[in-house]
Amino acid sequence: MAIRTSFTELFRLDYPIMLAPMALASGGELAAAVSNAGGLGLVGGGYGDPAWLTRELEIARSKATRRWGVGLITWKATDELVSLALSYKPNAFFLSFGDPLRFARQIKSAGCLLICQVQDIESTVQAKNAGADLIVAQGAEAGGHGATRATLPLVPTVIDAASPIPVLAAGGIADGRGLAAALALGAAGAVIGTRFCATEEALTHPDAKERLVRAGGGDTVRTRVFDEVRGYDWPEPYSGRALRNQFVDAWHGQEAALRASEPTRQEYQAALRSGDFETAAVWAGEAVDLVSSVAPAGELVRRISDDAEQQLRRLIQLLA
Amino acid sequence: MAIRTSFTELFRLDYPIMLAPMALASGGELAAAVSNAGGLGLVGGGYGDPAWLTRELEIARSKATRRWGVGLITWKATDELVSLALSYKPNAFFLSFGDPLRFARQIKSAGCLLICQVQDIESTVQAKNAGADLIVAQGAEAGGHGATRATLPLVPTVIDAASPIPVLAAGGIADGRGLAAALALGAAGAVIGTRFCATEEALTHPDAKERLVRAGGGDTVRTRVFDEVRGYDWPEPYSGRALRNQFVDAWHGQEAALRASEPTRQEYQAALRSGDFETAAVWAGEAVDLVSSVAPAGELVRRISDDAEQQLRRLIQLLA
Repeated sequence: MAIRTSFTELFRLDYPIMLAPMALASGGELAAAVSNAGGLGLVGGGYGDPAWLTRELEIARSKATRRWGVGLITWKATDELVSLALSYKPNAFFLSFGDPLRFARQIKSAGCLLICQVQDIESTVQAKNAGADLIVAQGAEAGGHGATRATLPLVPTVIDAASPIPVLAAGGIADGRGLAAALALGAAGAVIGTRFCATEEALTHPDAKERLVRAGGGDTVRTRVFDEVRGYDWPEPYSGRALRNQFVDAWHGQEAALRASEPTRQEYQAALRSGDFETAAVWAGEAVDLVSSVAPAGELVRRISDDAEQQLRRLIQLLA
Repeated sequence: MAIRTSFTELFRLDYPIMLAPMALASGGELAAAVSNAGGLGLVGGGYGDPAWLTRELEIARSKATRRWGVGLITWKATDELVSLALSYKPNAFFLSFGDPLRFARQIKSAGCLLICQVQDIESTVQAKNAGADLIVAQGAEAGGHGATRATLPLVPTVIDAASPIPVLAAGGIADGRGLAAALALGAAGAVIGTRFCATEEALTHPDAKERLVRAGGGDTVRTRVFDEVRGYDWPEPYSGRALRNQFVDAWHGQEAALRASEPTRQEYQAALRSGDFETAAVWAGEAVDLVSSVAPAGELVRRISDDAEQQLRRLIQLLA
């Protein structure tokens, strides 16, 4: 059995699940594993390091036997980065955090489908104007970067504004119940991030995966401290959700002082290299409550979708 | 047709919808209208003004022909207030924001079912220990008071922790899609607040209802300014979600100065009396996007549940 939606039709998928293109976590191995299991795997190009992109896109292209894609942070993207990514012939290009219009023609004229992630009505209108083939409504409970609106009320609002473009739900979804809820809201599927960080294929550091398995949703916080210390000038209204750690406790609310502290920046880079996650960020969404093991990604794709299907069949029983 | 869940069975309802017991908005008329339409209507006792409670409970008791109930803010409740409410023979007693254990025996020994609203795992454990008959998992997108976790990832987490006690979803739900999503998450129904403020029966000021109809979810903010100016000493981690207005813009982030300003307190009380909603609070959740009219409450109960049922039947079509 399977769940068929406009999203699964668009990419000829078995399951209505998209891997969030998480910067430095969603590499070619993870993207290929999700795609080969019947979902849509996306390489997380993030800020666009050409060496990283080249390596991971090469892996995705060589290992993916089905549709796959790539994502970039819109406000950091350039024509050159988009060209580099398109040269690997991805089937989908995911843009988030900024107006996608500038890159839309380049992407679509390459025969690649354009996926735009939005966080409010304004960005939904931008996505429509850019000619998005698929829109992702991302709620604030998502791990990593996002904005302020929560997924449950945001998704129906975006669906109304995006019509007739299909919409996926992102943020706060880590199991079959969340996927079933996304479908019940009228979404054509779900984008899942944090849950796929705790997979064998994710490029996430093993100690960070362990922290995800142990953490609860109350341990996450939306903050700008990890952007400040890395020198990334994220525009409003975006911030990043990560596990609270010693670094967050020390600097959250002290962003101006953090920006001015060059030694702290150097210490942060050292912590990143050494895998010290009381300083370095472990990006995580509120659904981290539902992450209880490190699993193979393909098995997760099947399990989440099968569980969603069971939930839907159970719902039928509620109708008297 | 109808949707049957453990919640509808518990209260012999036609629809798995509970009216949030919103202080000063959910009066006896609104509670009775929701109950008589086949949902569960709750009078919003709030901080527990005895004259208000007496008047509205009298209305609910005289007009409700089916099960109904009452809610109080746990940390403001007293044995006397609970006794007063119980003297009207409600079928359900809803407690939120604090440990319900202190009042549990009094409520349950009166033959009244105990509903405990929770915002995290810790309060879920408290609700279980108090012997809750039903638990409401409330997300931060809810209007009025709440905490920090978002509904979509919170509900499955609370369900896992509360089992076998049935759980309802609250926060961010205003239409049939939201109710269908709540059921898909495994909840036994939904608690709806903001949508019922924009009803003919709500005690909400007509100008405030108009603001709800016009507002979008991006116009709401979680803040403590309305508690500070009213002199309510809400414990952590609670704050209130309301429409952003001139008062919020002036004082949000300036809570200490606000607390010290006696003239501002007096101006606020005057604004409440005159219905000046650039100063006075209009409590609203993020689902206010989906509020587009002032409607009769009973019609809403039926429409939301009928739409949810349609969503569920549409989902069946997705299963190939």
